[in-house]
Amino acid sequence: MRSVVMRRAVCAAICLFVVLATLQQGFAADAKYVFLFIGDGMGLPQKQATEAFIGKKLTLDTFPVHGVTTTPAANRFIVDSAAAGTAMSSGQITDVGMIGMAPDKTKVKTIAEMARDRGMKVGIVSSVSIDHATPAAFYAHEESRNLYHYIDHALAKSGFDYFAGGGIKDPAGKRKGVEPRGDALQAIKGAGYTVVNDRESFMKLSGKDGKVLAYNAWLQDSGALPYEIDRREGKDISLAEFTAKGIELLDNNKGFFMMVEGGKIDWACHANDAKAAIMDTVAFDNAVAEAVKFYKKHPKETLIVVTGDHECGGMTLGFAGTAYESDFDVLKKQYVSFQFFQEDVLKLFKKENKGHITFDHLKPTITHYFGLEFEGDAANPMVVQPHELAQLQDAFVRSVASDTMELNDAVSKKLYGGYDPLIVSITHILNNKAGLAWTSFSHTAVPVGTTAIGAGADSFGGSYHQAAIAKKIMSAMGVKPRVYVAAQ
Amino acid sequence: MRSVVMRRAVCAAICLFVVLATLQQGFAADAKYVFLFIGDGMGLPQKQATEAFIGKKLTLDTFPVHGVTTTPAANRFIVDSAAAGTAMSSGQITDVGMIGMAPDKTKVKTIAEMARDRGMKVGIVSSVSIDHATPAAFYAHEESRNLYHYIDHALAKSGFDYFAGGGIKDPAGKRKGVEPRGDALQAIKGAGYTVVNDRESFMKLSGKDGKVLAYNAWLQDSGALPYEIDRREGKDISLAEFTAKGIELLDNNKGFFMMVEGGKIDWACHANDAKAAIMDTVAFDNAVAEAVKFYKKHPKETLIVVTGDHECGGMTLGFAGTAYESDFDVLKKQYVSFQFFQEDVLKLFKKENKGHITFDHLKPTITHYFGLEFEGDAANPMVVQPHELAQLQDAFVRSVASDTMELNDAVSKKLYGGYDPLIVSITHILNNKAGLAWTSFSHTAVPVGTTAIGAGADSFGGSYHQAAIAKKIMSAMGVKPRVYVAAQ
Repeated sequence: MRSVVMRRAVCAAICLFVVLATLQQGFAADAKYVFLFIGDGMGLPQKQATEAFIGKKLTLDTFPVHGVTTTPAANRFIVDSAAAGTAMSSGQITDVGMIGMAPDKTKVKTIAEMARDRGMKVGIVSSVSIDHATPAAFYAHEESRNLYHYIDHALAKSGFDYFAGGGIKDPAGKRKGVEPRGDALQAIKGAGYTVVNDRESFMKLSGKDGKVLAYNAWLQDSGALPYEIDRREGKDISLAEFTAKGIELLDNNKGFFMMVEGGKIDWACHANDAKAAIMDTVAFDNAVAEAVKFYKKHPKETLIVVTGDHECGGMTLGFAGTAYESDFDVLKKQYVSFQFFQEDVLKLFKKENKGHITFDHLKPTITHYFGLEFEGDAANPMVVQPHELAQLQDAFVRSVASDTMELNDAVSKKLYGGYDPLIVSITHILNNKAGLAWTSFSHTAVPVGTTAIGAGADSFGGSYHQAAIAKKIMSAMGVKPRVYVAAQ
Repeated sequence: MRSVVMRRAVCAAICLFVVLATLQQGFAADAKYVFLFIGDGMGLPQKQATEAFIGKKLTLDTFPVHGVTTTPAANRFIVDSAAAGTAMSSGQITDVGMIGMAPDKTKVKTIAEMARDRGMKVGIVSSVSIDHATPAAFYAHEESRNLYHYIDHALAKSGFDYFAGGGIKDPAGKRKGVEPRGDALQAIKGAGYTVVNDRESFMKLSGKDGKVLAYNAWLQDSGALPYEIDRREGKDISLAEFTAKGIELLDNNKGFFMMVEGGKIDWACHANDAKAAIMDTVAFDNAVAEAVKFYKKHPKETLIVVTGDHECGGMTLGFAGTAYESDFDVLKKQYVSFQFFQEDVLKLFKKENKGHITFDHLKPTITHYFGLEFEGDAANPMVVQPHELAQLQDAFVRSVASDTMELNDAVSKKLYGGYDPLIVSITHILNNKAGLAWTSFSHTAVPVGTTAIGAGADSFGGSYHQAAIAKKIMSAMGVKPRVYVAAQ
C-alpha cells in the first residue's frame, strides 16, 4: 500500500516539476502579434550616432535581448536589400537583387504569407515605396527587385490587409524590362483595397474600410516619404502614424504580422548625410515605440524584433581630423536633408543665377541650411577651415560641371559616389566636424544589431546570419523553422 | 496516515523540483578559472574582416553567448585603453588616461586583485609592453598611463604570479614626469620573480620557478612583441605560447584569473594596416583557443570572456571605390607589417640611396612586400591605377620630406595621422582594393562585441557598457558586483 502511494507521489513530483518548470519558463506560447522592424542601412554605428545625438537610448535598444547579425548574400559578401529582405522574410539566403526567391529561382514562402494562411492579418509599412526591395520581399517573388510593375501586381494579389507609407513605382508597366499587365492600381482597388493618399482620409480609416493601401501625399523621391528632417509636422504622415494606424486596423483575435521598414536611413547613408540618417532613425524608433505601446497591453502574446538589413555608408564614430574628439552639437544646425537641398534649393539657385554663379554667392545659403560659417574665430567648430574651403570650392566647380556631364571617373566616384559633389562635400565636412565619418556610398558587410522583446524574444540573443531571423520568427509563431517553398 | 504520506510526497515533489531546476540550470557554481581576453582595438569590423580573410569563424566567435558592448569614458565619448582597462578591471567608468582609479583619484580594486586576495593565482599577458595601459589597469593605480616607472614598481608589488609577453618600459625612471624609485627590474626580481627573456628558458619554466616575468627577446616597438605577421616561427614566442605556459603555471586547486591582451591589433589599426591587424587578431584567437582547451577539461568551473576595449581606426568592410565588391585575396601578398617596412626596409633604403632616391627606385620593393604592381592589365586587382599612383608619388615626396620636418598641418594629419605618408598610402590603397576602409588613426566609439562561454557566461548576453564586464566577472566569481575601493 505504502509503496503504491510513494510511487504515485514520485509521479506527482515529476508532473509537478514539469508544470513548475513550464511556469518558470513563462509558457512557451506562440506569439500572436508579431512585429518585425527593419531599419534599412541601420548598423550599430547608425544607432550609436543617433543615441549620442539625442542624448539617450533609442526605445529599440532598451529591449532585453540583443543579438549580433551577419548579412552576407549567397553570391556577394556585401548584401543588398532584396537578398537581405528575402533572407529575413523566408530564411532563404539568396543572390543580390532577388525577391522572395532562392538562387535557383524557387519561390520561397514568406513569414507574412504564413501568417496570412493561418488567418492572421498582415501589414507592410515602409518609408520608401511600398514596392521597394525590403517590403516586396514579404509579398512578391521576382528574379529582380527592379520589376516594380510585377511587384505592384503581386501586392494586389497578396491578400494582405494593410500596405502603407510610400507609393508604388510602376503601376502602368512603363519601366524597362517589364511587359505591361494592366494598371496595377486598378488591380489593387479591384482586389478590394481602399486607397488613400491624403492625411485626413488616412486618419479616419477604420476597420470598415477593409484592406488598405495608404501613402503620403508628398512623395519626396522615388515614391518615398519625405526624409524625417524634411517632414512637415501635421501635414505629412509619419512612419509612427502609419504604424499606429496599422496596429489599430490589424488588431483582431486571430493575431497579426506586421513588417515596418525605416527605408530612408539607408538612403541618407548612401548619400553620407548623417543628420538625415539620424532623424530617420528617430522616426523609425518612434514607430517601434507604437509597437511597444501595444506590447504593453499584450506582453505574453506579442513579439517585437528590430534589426537592420545591413550597414550603409561605412559610418563610424571617429574621424582622422578630429582624432579622439566628438561634437554632435555641430549637427544641430543642419535642418534639411541633402535631397531637399539638392532639389529644392541648389537647383533653383543654379537656375536663378545661370551663367554668373560663383561659390561666394552660395555661402549664405550653405550657412542658412547647414550652419557652416565662412568667417569667424577658427576655434568655433562651425567655421570652415582653409582646407575645407578648398574642398568645397573644388566640389562647387564639379557640381556646376555635373549639370552638363557625368562624373564617372574613379576619383569622382570615390569622392562623391554619384551624388552632387557640393552637397556631399558639405555633409562630409559637417559630419567630420561632429566626429562622424564614412568610407562608402554603398552598403558594407559590418554586422548589425538585432534586439527583441516579448514572446519568443530569448531566441534572438547570440550571433547569427539574418536568415535565422525568419526561422526564429517561425518558431515564435509555432511553425517549424525551415525554408518553405511558396505556391509556384 | 494517507494524508501524511501525501504531504510528504508533496514536500518530496518540491524538493525534487528544486534539485531538478538547479540541475537544469547546470549548477550556478562560482567560476574557479576565469579568463578575460581583451582584443585591443578589436571591434566587430576587425573580427568580421579576419573571418572573411581566413574563410571561417574565429574560435572566439563560436562561443554561445554574444553581447554588444558600449565603451564611452567618463570624460570623453571615445575611450582610451586606460579608461577602458579600468572599467573592465574594476567596474569603474573613469577619465581617459587613468589606471585603476576613479575620476576623483580614488584607487579602485581590480578583479585580478580580488582573485589574488581569495588565494587564486593571477596571470597578466599582453602582446605589448606589460606595463602598457590595458595590462596595467589590472595591477596598478596611477593618475596617468604614462607613469610607466611607477607602474613597473606596482608590478613588483602586485603579488601576481605570471606576467608575460612584452617588456617593461621604464625600469630606471628615465621618462619625463617621474621621480626615480630605483631599478624596477631589480625590485621585480627582489619580489621573487624569475625573469626570462629567451625562448629556451621560457619553454622550460615550471611550477618550481615561482612567480614569473617573461618576455620575448625581440621587442619590435615600444617594448612590444613583433606583429604576428613579422613573427619568426620557432624564434619569437607567440601570444598563444605565452597563454599556454600561463595556464600550465597558474593551474592549481584554488583557481586562477588570467587577463590576455591582443594589444597590437590596436596598433596596426592606428596605422590603418589591415593585414597586420588581421594577423594579430588570428594570433589573439590562437591564444583564446588555448583557454578553450583548458575549458574543455573543466567546463563547469571555467569562464572565458572575450571582448574588445574599443574599435580602432574606424575600419569598415566596404569602400567607395569598390562599392559593393570585396576581394580579400588582395591582402595575401602583403607579408610584413607597416612597422617592419618602415623601420627595416624604408629607412635602410633611404639611407642607402641618400640624395638620389626616386619613387621609381622603390617600386620593386613595394611590389615585393605588398604585392602592388606598377605594370600590367588594369583588370588585375593588384595593379596600381593612375589616381593611386599619383597618391603614392605625392606620399613619397612627403615621406622623404618627413625625415627633416614634421607633417603637422591639418591635411597631413587627416591623410597620414602622423605615420610615414608612403607606408600609410600603400596600406590604404591595398586595403581599399580589398574593400576595406578606414576613417581615423585613433579609436572610435562604435560598440564592440563580447563573447563568452562557461560558468556564468549567460550574463554576458544583451547590451551593456564595458564596466559591466568587471561586475559580471565578479558575480561569476561569487563576489557582490560593485566598485570596490582598493587599499589606498
